[in-house]
Amino acid sequence: MQTRAVALQERPVGMPKTSDFQILTQELPDPGDGEIQVKNVCMSVDPYMRGRMVDRKSYVPPFQIGEVLSGGSIGQVSKSNHADFAEGDYVSSHYGWREAYTAPVQGIEKLGNIVVAPSHYLGAIGMPGMTAYAGLLEVGALKEGETVYVSGAAGAVGSIVGQIAKIKNCRVLGSAGSADKVALLSGELGFDYAFDYHDGSILQHLREGAPDGLDVYFDNVGADHLQAAIMHMRQFGRIPLCGAIAQYNDTEPRPGPNNLAVAIGLGLTLRGFIVSHFNELKDQFRSDMENWVTGGQVISKETVYDGIENAGNAFIGLFTGANTGKMVVNFE
Amino acid sequence: MQTRAVALQERPVGMPKTSDFQILTQELPDPGDGEIQVKNVCMSVDPYMRGRMVDRKSYVPPFQIGEVLSGGSIGQVSKSNHADFAEGDYVSSHYGWREAYTAPVQGIEKLGNIVVAPSHYLGAIGMPGMTAYAGLLEVGALKEGETVYVSGAAGAVGSIVGQIAKIKNCRVLGSAGSADKVALLSGELGFDYAFDYHDGSILQHLREGAPDGLDVYFDNVGADHLQAAIMHMRQFGRIPLCGAIAQYNDTEPRPGPNNLAVAIGLGLTLRGFIVSHFNELKDQFRSDMENWVTGGQVISKETVYDGIENAGNAFIGLFTGANTGKMVVNFE
Repeated sequence: MQTRAVALQERPVGMPKTSDFQILTQELPDPGDGEIQVKNVCMSVDPYMRGRMVDRKSYVPPFQIGEVLSGGSIGQVSKSNHADFAEGDYVSSHYGWREAYTAPVQGIEKLGNIVVAPSHYLGAIGMPGMTAYAGLLEVGALKEGETVYVSGAAGAVGSIVGQIAKIKNCRVLGSAGSADKVALLSGELGFDYAFDYHDGSILQHLREGAPDGLDVYFDNVGADHLQAAIMHMRQFGRIPLCGAIAQYNDTEPRPGPNNLAVAIGLGLTLRGFIVSHFNELKDQFRSDMENWVTGGQVISKETVYDGIENAGNAFIGLFTGANTGKMVVNFE
Repeated sequence: MQTRAVALQERPVGMPKTSDFQILTQELPDPGDGEIQVKNVCMSVDPYMRGRMVDRKSYVPPFQIGEVLSGGSIGQVSKSNHADFAEGDYVSSHYGWREAYTAPVQGIEKLGNIVVAPSHYLGAIGMPGMTAYAGLLEVGALKEGETVYVSGAAGAVGSIVGQIAKIKNCRVLGSAGSADKVALLSGELGFDYAFDYHDGSILQHLREGAPDGLDVYFDNVGADHLQAAIMHMRQFGRIPLCGAIAQYNDTEPRPGPNNLAVAIGLGLTLRGFIVSHFNELKDQFRSDMENWVTGGQVISKETVYDGIENAGNAFIGLFTGANTGKMVVNFE
């Protein structure tokens, strides 16, 4: 039996393009002892993958040309040679970028009972949601009633950050890159103040939306968003450094914020993190987030591309602002 | 009775110069009810004062032209109209930059029994020593056996940071701006690796001195020191942001480190602080540091200028590398 998968054709330079990706057709073996075969239902594209397309040392090793990419996916077991996995079980794995796979069960997680459509386990109830949760509550040490600003606020992580902050009775500001996204933030997602970062000075918006300053800035974007936020923090403010999507396609290092010294007098904390630093929170996160999503306190937004042939375009869309909420590729 | 004091003649632009300061002669009143009169023994000049010479909002209000400057000093009570203060008592106050003063006792601290010469209470056992102590142990959360790099290592704060880290059985790297200072660090102060930052690449030195990377970088300098250190941190490394002396005389904002995104994958913490954020540690600090200094575990280095007419030059010397250890101005 054959199946399709995606590999790099070339390493992207600057903004990735469709021709950087290639579709491979591969033989799908039957599962050996202790292995399972899984048909993927959907896969995730995430900004952090851009870093792995560059040939350099990072916290995850680089992708290789011609080798199938990896990333989050949700699938259903189609054949099982392992006692713990039954046909039809939903599983989460890093075997994304392929329609199906056969593999040993190590690193494949059974989802058990799922309370909403599987794709949300790539988004609000998956890695981006957990990133928002750990980043805001642990790294950002958010307290009830504080004022929070999140950039990339209409994205997979940002949209959840803002909604968790609302649950914690905080004042929430968010920025995004289009009028539609801003309307979503202010409307359905319940942000207190939302703005288009193309529209005037970021700092001016922060002053208007948070006259008394920011306690937490959740940084998904880096660059001028970070610099403006530093300028507007309150004493002992916290800045979880989660991403720097503005810079991921840079071909030259970009200068950092010119006002880091402000952090001294104000006692600010800037702290980088990735979700795997907080694995011990996984069960608590899933339980909280499933309750919030089914209870309507968190709205899990998605942008869906169909078919593995569009996986590359879905990924590129992350950097052109094509997604609202979580970007997923659906295989069914 | 008349006494001399120092005021700004002009706000420095870029590197301060002697003519930016003026000596005033003032009438010294007798103390009124609840007041004391103090003859200063010595005064402190500190890099943070540079920020107060600029007319902008900061964590302390700016100095005004023609108004006597303020800063740390140690003096002896010469006349007392307050029951808690007796003639001859040593006191610490912010009434520096003047030979004597008459003032209410609020904010004036009795030193009680002092175990070394008074000037050390402006240095190792004073504000800079406490900055090193709180910054390294609290902000930097230093653990036994870790590897620490401190810039400005021959200065008032840096020299104490390195020596406390040695007491905690850490590997200690330090940089300074001259061969004499490097020799002091490697020799008398017991650093494991010291280098002149003019001499080749900072990052190359860090790799040589700490092949396994840095757990803590204590930043007194900012700029290229910070960027190089970020590049060489270990996972979950901590960077207390204490000062940015390389930038204090900049007339334009200077771009920040171009590699802040490295903090994300490594889970680094950059945290700014000033000593007053840690006032609750004051007693514990004084007791520890007096023991270390009298026991010879911490060597309290000083550079002494004589007479109030040299106070401005002592201050300027902070930015030209004229001081080794604490820069003080002696009045006796």
